[in-house]
Amino acid sequence: MRKQKVTISVIGSHDAVGKKARKAYQVGALIAELGAVLVCGGLGGVMEQAAKGAQEHGGLTIGILPGKDKKDANPYIDLALPTSIGYARNCFVASCADIVVALEGSYGTNCEICYGLVFKRPVIDLGGWGIKGMIKVRNMAQLRQKIQCLMNNL
Amino acid sequence: MRKQKVTISVIGSHDAVGKKARKAYQVGALIAELGAVLVCGGLGGVMEQAAKGAQEHGGLTIGILPGKDKKDANPYIDLALPTSIGYARNCFVASCADIVVALEGSYGTNCEICYGLVFKRPVIDLGGWGIKGMIKVRNMAQLRQKIQCLMNNL
Amino acid sequence: MRKQKVTISVIGSHDAVGKKARKAYQVGALIAELGAVLVCGGLGGVMEQAAKGAQEHGGLTIGILPGKDKKDANPYIDLALPTSIGYARNCFVASCADIVVALEGSYGTNCEICYGLVFKRPVIDLGGWGIKGMIKVRNMAQLRQKIQCLMNNL
Amino acid sequence: MRKQKVTISVIGSHDAVGKKARKAYQVGALIAELGAVLVCGGLGGVMEQAAKGAQEHGGLTIGILPGKDKKDANPYIDLALPTSIGYARNCFVASCADIVVALEGSYGTNCEICYGLVFKRPVIDLGGWGIKGMIKVRNMAQLRQKIQCLMNNL
Repeated sequence: MRKQKVTISVIGSHDAVGKKARKAYQVGALIAELGAVLVCGGLGGVMEQAAKGAQEHGGLTIGILPGKDKKDANPYIDLALPTSIGYARNCFVASCADIVVALEGSYGTNCEICYGLVFKRPVIDLGGWGIKGMIKVRNMAQLRQKIQCLMNNL
Repeated sequence: MRKQKVTISVIGSHDAVGKKARKAYQVGALIAELGAVLVCGGLGGVMEQAAKGAQEHGGLTIGILPGKDKKDANPYIDLALPTSIGYARNCFVASCADIVVALEGSYGTNCEICYGLVFKRPVIDLGGWGIKGMIKVRNMAQLRQKIQCLMNNL
Repeated sequence: MRKQKVTISVIGSHDAVGKKARKAYQVGALIAELGAVLVCGGLGGVMEQAAKGAQEHGGLTIGILPGKDKKDANPYIDLALPTSIGYARNCFVASCADIVVALEGSYGTNCEICYGLVFKRPVIDLGGWGIKGMIKVRNMAQLRQKIQCLMNNL
Repeated sequence: MRKQKVTISVIGSHDAVGKKARKAYQVGALIAELGAVLVCGGLGGVMEQAAKGAQEHGGLTIGILPGKDKKDANPYIDLALPTSIGYARNCFVASCADIVVALEGSYGTNCEICYGLVFKRPVIDLGGWGIKGMIKVRNMAQLRQKIQCLMNNL
C-alpha cells in the first residue's frame, strides 16, 4: 500500500486571460513541482490554465466536470471525472481537496470557497477575496511556502 | 390542474437569536401572508424562526434537510424533505426557489446566495451581504413591496 | 406547530400509457384520499398520471425535478422543486419519502427502489419488480391497506 | 497535452470475502495491466480488494468516498476523493467511468448499475445480475477481452 496523494483544488473564473491566466498557470506549475495532484472544475479559464501549468510540469491533473461527458474537459486534464450533478459539483471540488487555492472568480468560485471553509479545508486567498477564515497570501513565493507548510502537516 | 405554488427560500444563520430571530420570524410571516410557500434548510436559527412565522400565519413550510431523517427538522416544518446529500443541499435550497431572501449568516448562507445568483434567481439582501447581483432592501416594507413585484412577474 | 405531513413517492416509467397510466392515476388518487402528500419526479408518464390522480382528489403534489426550471414539471404539480442535479435527484425522490410505491419502470425506477431500500424506507412493489426487501402487493385494495398500516406506524 | 486516462469503475459488495474477494482483486489487477485507472467507492469489500489488486500491479486507484474525510478510504487508494454527498455518490461512481464492472453486491451496487445504464456506460456483468442492457461475461479471460475491445473503441 502507498501513501495517499495530496490533492490541491484550484478555483477561479472560467474566463481568465492575460495576467490572471498566467497566474493560474503558475499555480498549477507550483502544485506539480511540490508533488501534489491538481484538482479543478475541468473547464476553461483558471481551470484550464492551472491544469496546463501542472501538466507541463509533470503533475497529474483531475477535472471534476459538471456534466456527463469527458469531452467537456479542457485539453490538459488527465483524469476527467464527469459528475452529472451540474453546479452542485462545486461542493465536491472543495470536499475532495486537502488544500484549496482561490484565484479571482465569480459566484461559482465564491461558492467553492464557502464549501472549503464549511468542510474546514485550508482555503488560500490569492484572488483578493478577503473572506473571513481564508489564508491570505500576497505572491507566488508566499503561496509556495504556505502550501509546503500545510503539506507537512497533513 | 392548478397553478404552481410560488416558493420563497429564506436563508441565514443556524443560530439566530434576539433581533435576528425576530426578523426571520417576520420574513416567514410575510411570505405566508403573500400566499407563497416558505422553503428553508429545515434546521434551527433563521430556518426555524422563518418557518414558525410562516406556519403561525397560515403558510405552508418546507424543510430541505441535509440528512436522511425527518426528525432532524425544526418543529415548524410541514413538509420535511430529507435529501441525504449533506451540505450539497445548499444548492437545492437555491434552485428550488422562485425567490431567495438572505438574512445574516455565515459560509452556508453565502454559498446559497451564490447558487441563487448562478441559477439566476432573484436574491434579496436583507442581511447586509452587499454581494453584486443581489437586490438590496432596507426594511420589511421594502421587502414586501419587492416580493409582491417579483411575484407579479413570475 | 403542526404535525409533519406524510410524503409518499410514486416512481415508475416516464412513458406510461393505457393500463399503466390508469394504475398510476389510481395510486395518486389513493394517496390523496389517505391524506398524504404525493411526491414524484415531476415529469411525464407515471409521474404525471399519479400527480393528476392526487390533484384531482384534493391532494398536494410535489415534483422533484432533475433540471433547474419549474417549467419542466408536468401540469399536475403544485410544488415544483428543481434540484439542478440531474439523475442524482433519484436519490432524493427516495430519501424524502416516508413510503415509496414502485410501479413498472426502467433503470431510473430501479435506482430509486434501491435508494429506498438503502435508506430503509418501506418500498411497495406494485410493478412486478420482485427485488428482495420490497413489500409485494397485488392490487389497489392491498395497497390501500398496506399504506394505511404503514402510516399508522410512522 | 496528454491523452485522457481511461477510468474503469469496479462496483460490488462492501463485505466481500473468500472467492468474491479474490475475484475483485483479479479484476483490479487486470485493470492495472490494461493501463486503465481503477475507480471505486473507496471503502471495504470489493472496493478494497479491487484497489489492492490494481495498486499491487502498478495501477492508479481512485476512491469516490461518501463522506468528508480521506481517512475513510481503504489502504489501497492513491487518490481519495471525499464527495460529502453520502449514497448519492453512487451516481458519480457510474458517471465518472468509461466502463463499469459489476461484481456481486446489494442495493448500492444495483443502484450504480442502473446509473451506469442511464448514462449509457458499458456495464459488464461479472456478478450474475442479469439486468437487461448489461454485458455478460463468464470469466476473467472474457472480461479481459471485453475491456480491451471497449478500450479500443473509446
